[in-house]
Amino acid sequence: MADDIAELDEALRRQADTVRRLKQEKASPEEVAEQVAKLLELKAQLGTDEGKHKFVLKTPKGTRDYSPKQMAIREKVFDIIIGTFKRHGAEVIDTPVFELKETLTGKYGEDSKLIYDLKDQGGELLSLRYDLTVPFARYLAMNKITNIKRYHIAKVYRRDNPAMTRGRYREFYQCDFDIAGQFDPMIPDAECLKIVHEILSGLQIGDFVIKVNDRRILDGMFAVCGVPDSKFRTICSTVDKLDKATWEDVKSEMVGEKGLSPEAADRIGEYVQLHGGLGLIEQLLQDPKLSQNKLARDGLGDMKLLFEYLTLFGIADKISFDLSLARGLDYYTGVIYEAILLQPQNAHKEELGSVGSVAGGGRYDGLVGMFDPKGRKVPCVGVSIGIERIFSILEQKVEASEEKIRTTETQVLVAAAQKKLLEERLKLISELWDSGIKAEMLYKKNPKLLNQLQYCEDNGIPLVAIIGEQELKDGVVKLRVVATREEVDVRRENLIEEIKRRTCHP
Amino acid sequence: MADDIAELDEALRRQADTVRRLKQEKASPEEVAEQVAKLLELKAQLGTDEGKHKFVLKTPKGTRDYSPKQMAIREKVFDIIIGTFKRHGAEVIDTPVFELKETLTGKYGEDSKLIYDLKDQGGELLSLRYDLTVPFARYLAMNKITNIKRYHIAKVYRRDNPAMTRGRYREFYQCDFDIAGQFDPMIPDAECLKIVHEILSGLQIGDFVIKVNDRRILDGMFAVCGVPDSKFRTICSTVDKLDKATWEDVKSEMVGEKGLSPEAADRIGEYVQLHGGLGLIEQLLQDPKLSQNKLARDGLGDMKLLFEYLTLFGIADKISFDLSLARGLDYYTGVIYEAILLQPQNAHKEELGSVGSVAGGGRYDGLVGMFDPKGRKVPCVGVSIGIERIFSILEQKVEASEEKIRTTETQVLVAAAQKKLLEERLKLISELWDSGIKAEMLYKKNPKLLNQLQYCEDNGIPLVAIIGEQELKDGVVKLRVVATREEVDVRRENLIEEIKRRTCHP
Repeated sequence: MADDIAELDEALRRQADTVRRLKQEKASPEEVAEQVAKLLELKAQLGTDEGKHKFVLKTPKGTRDYSPKQMAIREKVFDIIIGTFKRHGAEVIDTPVFELKETLTGKYGEDSKLIYDLKDQGGELLSLRYDLTVPFARYLAMNKITNIKRYHIAKVYRRDNPAMTRGRYREFYQCDFDIAGQFDPMIPDAECLKIVHEILSGLQIGDFVIKVNDRRILDGMFAVCGVPDSKFRTICSTVDKLDKATWEDVKSEMVGEKGLSPEAADRIGEYVQLHGGLGLIEQLLQDPKLSQNKLARDGLGDMKLLFEYLTLFGIADKISFDLSLARGLDYYTGVIYEAILLQPQNAHKEELGSVGSVAGGGRYDGLVGMFDPKGRKVPCVGVSIGIERIFSILEQKVEASEEKIRTTETQVLVAAAQKKLLEERLKLISELWDSGIKAEMLYKKNPKLLNQLQYCEDNGIPLVAIIGEQELKDGVVKLRVVATREEVDVRRENLIEEIKRRTCHP
Repeated sequence: MADDIAELDEALRRQADTVRRLKQEKASPEEVAEQVAKLLELKAQLGTDEGKHKFVLKTPKGTRDYSPKQMAIREKVFDIIIGTFKRHGAEVIDTPVFELKETLTGKYGEDSKLIYDLKDQGGELLSLRYDLTVPFARYLAMNKITNIKRYHIAKVYRRDNPAMTRGRYREFYQCDFDIAGQFDPMIPDAECLKIVHEILSGLQIGDFVIKVNDRRILDGMFAVCGVPDSKFRTICSTVDKLDKATWEDVKSEMVGEKGLSPEAADRIGEYVQLHGGLGLIEQLLQDPKLSQNKLARDGLGDMKLLFEYLTLFGIADKISFDLSLARGLDYYTGVIYEAILLQPQNAHKEELGSVGSVAGGGRYDGLVGMFDPKGRKVPCVGVSIGIERIFSILEQKVEASEEKIRTTETQVLVAAAQKKLLEERLKLISELWDSGIKAEMLYKKNPKLLNQLQYCEDNGIPLVAIIGEQELKDGVVKLRVVATREEVDVRRENLIEEIKRRTCHP
């Protein structure tokens, strides 16, 4: 509804611009009259009149504000994710929210249409970043870095169809960890999966599985199934839809839209149903067709190595080698993976795929070379945690539990027992702030004591430092514990130490 | 230079579009030929040919990446700023990077031309946020919040002329703290100044002064100097240039561009030279002209109260009541302020104003009402810390001191003394990660011990956990202290405890 108004509103503004332009350009009276009629019609639809413009009070479609409570949840999630990245020795970088448009061109395949462009206001043509991977590759090439392990947490932008209740937004956070450099096979790749496992376990959002596959296995499979080379990428995009669509729909897209023979599609259909572990890898290494293809053999050999390392990390039981996993993006060249949250037993199967994906990534050995003037390659592998869905889940959890989340860290409220003590409160709170104590006071000259105590109850502030005429005379402050209503007189010179002692384990 | 190429590049692309369009529209051969000639000329300038597009490897004009070292500095600055905000009991919110275009319209006066618009790709018209204050006001009105103390740290966007060495960017961070609500006069306003004082002291970036003024005093001054009401805002914008321009230039803009009488300008000129403390306030309260104006009297009365509170906070010596301070933005309604870094004695005077501003803010009681359908007002006062300049100063400081900044927190490197120990290293590092130890290993099957030790030296990693055939047999790990080269055998089951003990004060 709000969107309808915004769009109507927008149409109104554009029509008004048209009329203005026609007048400036001294168009024929008939032409102006026709456009004015359209304008009046739009105004009637909106129910506005000239003088009173109906203002739309909202955030842009597909975006949201974070309230203090949501921020408190967000900070907890970030702490776990950043803690994991740092535990693995990662540095951190940041890049601008927009890039030169050409930096993003040709990196995202069919998804490029979802990129937000900036208006041409003179100067360079710019687009909002679509992910953090392409800016990372641009950063490596620009600074001639061939070896780095970094994380990057920032918002990215996609003009997709939002589904906000399921955590799909047009502006959303990505938490990326990537390892760039020439290393021995599958060691950094295995660490990326270990990181996903640590983060998802640490967040305690339920059971999960991490699907893995390899673009070389997919390409080998396409080759032996009779897909022409030129159609590898586009057929790959279609396979990627298997998590949301049935095989029949996917096959019909392959044959109908993409022009693949039904026989080739059926051969693909047999492979993409397979998923398993080391046993499946061994089986496919013996597969009479697939084992003849070098790409597939290389991919399967590395997949075997990967499973050995994951077994040493103790996480192989959460990993599923799944031939239907394709990943949408163009730039992957080797292993790819996607972590899926598993629903509790009673959930509908068809929701599983679309609700559950919370992390994904893979190897992209060619992307940096696309930016290097001499095409020098820097092999990379990485993972991106899609935390909006995780936020949604945790927010619902908090709502359901009615757990009270504090949104401030205030340790003490500076309160007055009588009137005319504003100056004394200002002096005391200033001392507390200067000693590093987190303190608040009410912004009233003469607040009632009851209101000050109520403020502590409402905001979870554990202590109140009360001053009155008598306390000032005695050189003490009355320290009240909000939870127990216990009160003690503390000598002014000992107050800071006493507050620190009482709040060191908040 | 890079910008020139980008712009030429852009012109080339546009010209190519023009040619394509003309061909599609079946324009006359002469017209096409003319445009093709222009295209070829541009190509010659760029030195490219059709097949090989010269790729520009850069971030957009006025923006920059943050390297791991810069991020380490940035995190330290943020820690101090966020620590201060939390010490004052602030909650935190976040808003989208873009807003509906109409949300920003009419809020920034002459600076509105600097707003970045997004391209119209259908749907709503959007602009990148220009500051965090307008989104905050929109958030309050949208959620009907009448009482909040919040901070917000995020990037904002201005299509200004960048001066990157002086920390002026097109994409830059703002760190905002605001108090919204109906309170007794000057109490929250004084707290905002206390916060600026705490942050600038905490950052240890040299001496500073905080200039304060009041829009009501300015408006009163304009009135008694004979400025017509309709010109208050535009003359205010001109006064705001006094920190960068001489009085002669400012006067000439007032008289020439803004059509003010030279006599009125001269009368303003006398006032705006004044600055001082409580004494100046008292003097102006007695000023025969100014004291006749109600706005000025109200502003001066509140200014006096503010200085009393700042004296109680012990920070009045850093505050200068300065009648030349105007602030560019339209939305201020009361007290305004700006913090200036003071240069060491030998700096040029003219650089002082333009280099030095690191924080600013004020009271804006009308802004939320502009968003409320019924115009309900929520009084607000806040401050914005402009940290890019602070980054620049701290970066230069670090460069000059040759201090080595660690960009990771890794506590221990898991190393092998001989070949064929990859599996053992993977098992050990996995145990360390699972126990919360920050650990790395080289991504090589058989790294040389010397290379592993060198990696620790290069990256400031304090400990090495070395495994070899003998250690495995004995059930121990050799723990080496990188700084002292001391080595001890630690039983495998005690290793985690031992590492924690040795790194608890990093």
